[in-house]
Amino acid sequence: MEIVERLLKGDVKALSRLITYIDDGKPEALKAIAELYPYTGKAHIVGFTGAPGVGKSSLINLLIKELRKRGKTVGVVCVDPSSPFTQGAFLGDRIRMVDLSLDDGVFIRSMGSRGSLGGPSRSTRDVVKVLDAFGKDYVIVETVGSGQVDMDIVQVAHTVVIVLAPGLGDSIQALKAGIMEIGDIFVVNKADREDADKTLYEIREMLDLKPVEDGWVPPIIKTTVVDGRGVEELLQAVEQRMEYLKKNNLLVLKMKQMMEAEIMNILKLKLASRVSDLEKTDGVLTEAVAQVGAKQMDPYTAAEKILAKINLKKAV
Amino acid sequence: MEIVERLLKGDVKALSRLITYIDDGKPEALKAIAELYPYTGKAHIVGFTGAPGVGKSSLINLLIKELRKRGKTVGVVCVDPSSPFTQGAFLGDRIRMVDLSLDDGVFIRSMGSRGSLGGPSRSTRDVVKVLDAFGKDYVIVETVGSGQVDMDIVQVAHTVVIVLAPGLGDSIQALKAGIMEIGDIFVVNKADREDADKTLYEIREMLDLKPVEDGWVPPIIKTTVVDGRGVEELLQAVEQRMEYLKKNNLLVLKMKQMMEAEIMNILKLKLASRVSDLEKTDGVLTEAVAQVGAKQMDPYTAAEKILAKINLKKAV
Repeated sequence: MEIVERLLKGDVKALSRLITYIDDGKPEALKAIAELYPYTGKAHIVGFTGAPGVGKSSLINLLIKELRKRGKTVGVVCVDPSSPFTQGAFLGDRIRMVDLSLDDGVFIRSMGSRGSLGGPSRSTRDVVKVLDAFGKDYVIVETVGSGQVDMDIVQVAHTVVIVLAPGLGDSIQALKAGIMEIGDIFVVNKADREDADKTLYEIREMLDLKPVEDGWVPPIIKTTVVDGRGVEELLQAVEQRMEYLKKNNLLVLKMKQMMEAEIMNILKLKLASRVSDLEKTDGVLTEAVAQVGAKQMDPYTAAEKILAKINLKKAV
Repeated sequence: MEIVERLLKGDVKALSRLITYIDDGKPEALKAIAELYPYTGKAHIVGFTGAPGVGKSSLINLLIKELRKRGKTVGVVCVDPSSPFTQGAFLGDRIRMVDLSLDDGVFIRSMGSRGSLGGPSRSTRDVVKVLDAFGKDYVIVETVGSGQVDMDIVQVAHTVVIVLAPGLGDSIQALKAGIMEIGDIFVVNKADREDADKTLYEIREMLDLKPVEDGWVPPIIKTTVVDGRGVEELLQAVEQRMEYLKKNNLLVLKMKQMMEAEIMNILKLKLASRVSDLEKTDGVLTEAVAQVGAKQMDPYTAAEKILAKINLKKAV
């Protein structure tokens, strides 16, 4: 495809257009991704997640500048609907972004969150691939979960950075359940606040309870956006994490897990789209709901009947 | 099935055993649910969701007592791993629970959260059905999301109660995205705290921005667990919500949506289990990951190939 050739030659307009195709769900996007796929796998994908208001975007901004100083190129995908990258930016953020948008080495794109409440949607995964194939050294994904943290980010990113801020009260407690499992690096942003050390201590306490699975002990880094304190340290941690993954043969394993999650995700989407097609032609779902509603059938049997009608083999 | 007959006669031991079967994923559970299905659809299913620490369990405890005073029977399913119903109960909670556990009209069961981080899993949905078929007037589901609120509760419950507490700082802001859409009733618990009114005001402000879709304006209720203030009001709101759904023909619509969501959920699980079977016999997923990893294939094509191998028609 022409768009793929142009993109691979470094044409930013082609990159931008393909991402729009992806966001709009156009069929040519899929074809392009298939063609681009062999060129992926070189970027370091770093996920940033945390509650709105902790300062993820400002932090990413500073990190990008640090990366640019070292000559690295960066792509950013925002899935946080409340992110200043997306909308509702404070003036300061806007200025900083314009700043970045004039830089050829940086490409920032916000995604619509389409029902999935901020988690990395299908299209986000695809945009990450495209930015990777385009040749960006780093692809940063900014995302927020239904509550505070997006757990699915682990399926998309090599390195997961959890950003917290002091003064969120009970919220660290609230995050306990899953956050410790997925975080590779923890950041206490707004570290100039007086209760920053308390937050840091709470994170450390919880990390101490976590079994160290792959030998990596997640660093906790204090950052301040105003003066950029801690940002260089954060970048070092990100680089160390990647080195660690490579050195211990964990990167291959991680990429396998990510691919498996991705294939399963696509399978489920394909199933949903087949059911949706069958609903349009035969009203299978309407019929099933009617029968289940009338207690003529339980939902398991109804699902089996729909599966029987989907001859997936034929559809391929 | 014998267990179904006994359960329908009101045998609590049979109820308890079937729930254990469900939790353990035993095949006979599915058969029993299919047999019980015609007896479901009578209970009012009320979901309680909110961050750990806001006092959901204590509030549910008081609500149960209020319901019992009125002669209503209650089933409770806890999916919150941090719930005192589940573990780590404070002594006070334990005593209150023992209190309830001696009451024939109340059945409380905690579910393992099995990877889904607190959201209503397959088994939770099934336990709700079983408690409904058993004849409970009310089935209460206590759940917590990956962050703070479990968005999927809307697929399970007729009425969704969002429990908040003052002093959670930025967290209400954080919840903005989806919470307003799914909450039918809002509770500000720990209303004796001085900043309770601030929290109430913030919720009201956000609700004002929400388009009123079905004409229902979610009430915001202040409760205090210590003296039980507001609990009767909460129960009234729960009952009013159900009356509203019935009167405006919304209950039928809601139940249709819930059934559709349930059937799609089962379909996806069935797909995953077929893939897992094919992985065991043919290593389809391992092969796909290897090919995708070697860049011989993109993930979409790999997913198509797996779909082609799943002849679902045959498997039924």
